[in-house]
Amino acid sequence: MSDIRVLQMGLGPIGLRVTRYLLERGGFEVVAAVDADMELIGRDLGDLAGLSPMGVEVNGTVAAALEVSSPQVAIVTTTSSLARFEKQIPPLLRAGLSIVSTCEELAYPWTRQPEISRRIDAAATEAGVAVLGTGVNPGFLMDFLPVALSGVCQKVTKITVWRVQDAQFRRIPFQRKIGAGLAPEAFQAKVDDGSLRHVGLTESMHMIAAAMGWDLTETTESIDPVMTTETIRTSGLTIEPGQAMGVAQTGKAYCGDELRIELLFRAAVGEPESFERLCIDGDPTIDMRIAGGVNGDVATGAIVVNATASILDAQPGLRTMIDVSPVCYKAS
Amino acid sequence: MSDIRVLQMGLGPIGLRVTRYLLERGGFEVVAAVDADMELIGRDLGDLAGLSPMGVEVNGTVAAALEVSSPQVAIVTTTSSLARFEKQIPPLLRAGLSIVSTCEELAYPWTRQPEISRRIDAAATEAGVAVLGTGVNPGFLMDFLPVALSGVCQKVTKITVWRVQDAQFRRIPFQRKIGAGLAPEAFQAKVDDGSLRHVGLTESMHMIAAAMGWDLTETTESIDPVMTTETIRTSGLTIEPGQAMGVAQTGKAYCGDELRIELLFRAAVGEPESFERLCIDGDPTIDMRIAGGVNGDVATGAIVVNATASILDAQPGLRTMIDVSPVCYKAS
Repeated sequence: MSDIRVLQMGLGPIGLRVTRYLLERGGFEVVAAVDADMELIGRDLGDLAGLSPMGVEVNGTVAAALEVSSPQVAIVTTTSSLARFEKQIPPLLRAGLSIVSTCEELAYPWTRQPEISRRIDAAATEAGVAVLGTGVNPGFLMDFLPVALSGVCQKVTKITVWRVQDAQFRRIPFQRKIGAGLAPEAFQAKVDDGSLRHVGLTESMHMIAAAMGWDLTETTESIDPVMTTETIRTSGLTIEPGQAMGVAQTGKAYCGDELRIELLFRAAVGEPESFERLCIDGDPTIDMRIAGGVNGDVATGAIVVNATASILDAQPGLRTMIDVSPVCYKAS
Repeated sequence: MSDIRVLQMGLGPIGLRVTRYLLERGGFEVVAAVDADMELIGRDLGDLAGLSPMGVEVNGTVAAALEVSSPQVAIVTTTSSLARFEKQIPPLLRAGLSIVSTCEELAYPWTRQPEISRRIDAAATEAGVAVLGTGVNPGFLMDFLPVALSGVCQKVTKITVWRVQDAQFRRIPFQRKIGAGLAPEAFQAKVDDGSLRHVGLTESMHMIAAAMGWDLTETTESIDPVMTTETIRTSGLTIEPGQAMGVAQTGKAYCGDELRIELLFRAAVGEPESFERLCIDGDPTIDMRIAGGVNGDVATGAIVVNATASILDAQPGLRTMIDVSPVCYKAS
C-alpha cells in the first residue's frame, strides 16, 4: 500500500498534533498545509509542529496548496461551526478530496442543521468522496460508544454518559478554558459570550437518537461552574474559595415526558477522579466504566489519524461515525 | 418502513429466542422457519417459541419454506462450523436472502479458513446480498469492542480481554455445559471430544489482528477446569471439592516474541463476580470494565435482531463486524 497523501487545513494545536501523529504512525505523507493566519503562511510545517523541517510550506489557500501538491484526504481542524466549515470545503471537494474534520457541529449535523447537511451531502456525493466529522467528544465517547454498546441490547430505555476529568495536570490554557480561577460573574460572562462552552452535546444526543430510532421532542443544555470551597494550587494557577474549579455541562433529551438521554460533562481542577461512565438502561442493562478516563488531546489526534486511514473506503456523501465501519487503530 | 421478512433457520434455544425477540421488537415478520429435526417439522413456530400460534409451520428444507413465503433475510442458528454453514446456505443465496448467523467460525473466518471464506464471499457478492456472522462472543465483547475502542488510540501494543461469569444463576444445561460438577478426568474427556469448548477465541483474535494490521505468527488456545475446594450447591447441582466449578479458556496471539492479544474467558458456578474487562496497552492506555458483565443469552439474541435490522443496507459479500456500520439497538 502506498502512503495516503494528506492536506492539513488548520494549524492550531489539534492540527499540528495530527501532523505529528500522522508522521509517527507512518503510512501517511503530509503533502500540503493550509492556514489563513498570515503569520504562518510560508513557514515550514515541520518547524511549526516541533519536528524537523519537512519541506512543506504553509499556504494561505487551498488553491495555492493544490498547485504544488496532489493530496487525497483533507484534514480540517479549523472551526466548530458547520456554517463556517461548509464555506471552507468547496475547493477541497472540487479537487476530489475526502474530508475528515474535528468540526464539532459536523459530528451529527442532520437534525439541527438539515439544510447545510443536505448541501454538504449532495456536494460530497457529486464529488464521489466522503466527508466525516469525528473527535473524542463529540464523535466517540458520548455518542458512538453508547450506540455501539447498544448492539447487544434487546431494549434500551435510557442512555446516560458521564465524562469527568480532573484538569489538574492538563495544560494551563485548558485549565483557563474550563473557567478555572474565575469568579462566578466572570464565569457567567464567558458562558454568555460562548467562549467557555464545550460544543457538541446536542450533536451527540441527536446522533444517539437517530441510531436508536427515537423521535426527540426536546433537548436541553445547561452549563454551570464547579465551585471550590478550598484553595487549589496548580503549577500555574491558584484558585481561591468562591472561584470556579471548572465547568459542568449537562445535555438532556426527551421523548415526551421521558428522559431518554443524559450527558454529563465535567472538567475541573481538583476533580477527585477522571473517568468515563456509560449506562444503558434496558435489557440487558449495561454499566461501563473507563478508569482514569481517556486523555482528550491524545484521543482526538488519534481518532483523526485513524479515520484518515479508512475514509477512502467509506461510501461517498456526508457520513457520521454511526454509518461508517468502526474507525480503529491500524499499525502502519 | 414495511416490516423485514425473516426466515428463521435452526430452532434450538438461540433460534427460538431470536424469534421471540423479533416479535417483541416489532418491525419484523417471521414468515418461515426451517429445521432438519423431524420432530419439529410441521409444528407451529409460535408454539415452539412459547408464544401463541403464529401460523408459520416448520419446514424441513429451505426449498419447502420458500414455496410458501418470500423472506428477505435468513437468520441461521444451526452450527458453529463454517464448513457446515457453507453447505446450508446455497438455497438461501439463490433466493437472494441476506444472512445473519451465530455460526462462531463465521465471525471472522478469513484467516483460518480463507478458501471457504472466499467462496462464501463470491457467492454472496454474486447474489447481491451480505452474509454476516455475529453474536456476543465471538462477534462483540472480545473482538468488535476492543477494535472499536482502539479508535481513540495513537498506539496499541497489546489487547487483553476478560470475560468472567458466575454461572450460579444460569440454566442447569449451561452449568453442565461448562463442566460444573465434573471430576478432572471427566472434564478432560469432554475437552477431548470437543463438547466443552467455547468456539471462537481464535476467530476473535484474528478479527482483532486484521483490524490492527498485525501479522500474527502464532495463536494458542488452552482450556482448563476451574476446580472448587468447597462444596457448592445450586438449585439443580451439587459440586464437591475436587470437581470442576466451570471452565477457563485462554487465547493468546503473538507477533514474534510479543504477546499482542490475550483473551481470558471464565465461566464457573460460584465465581465471585461477573464482569467484562478490556485493556488496551498503548497511547492512551484504556482500562474498561462492565460491572456485572453482559448476559450472554440476552445479548446474543439481541445482536442478531439488531444485525437483522441493518443487514439489508450492508455491502454485498462476506462481511464481519469490523466492516459494517455499528450494529445497534433500534426501536421499532
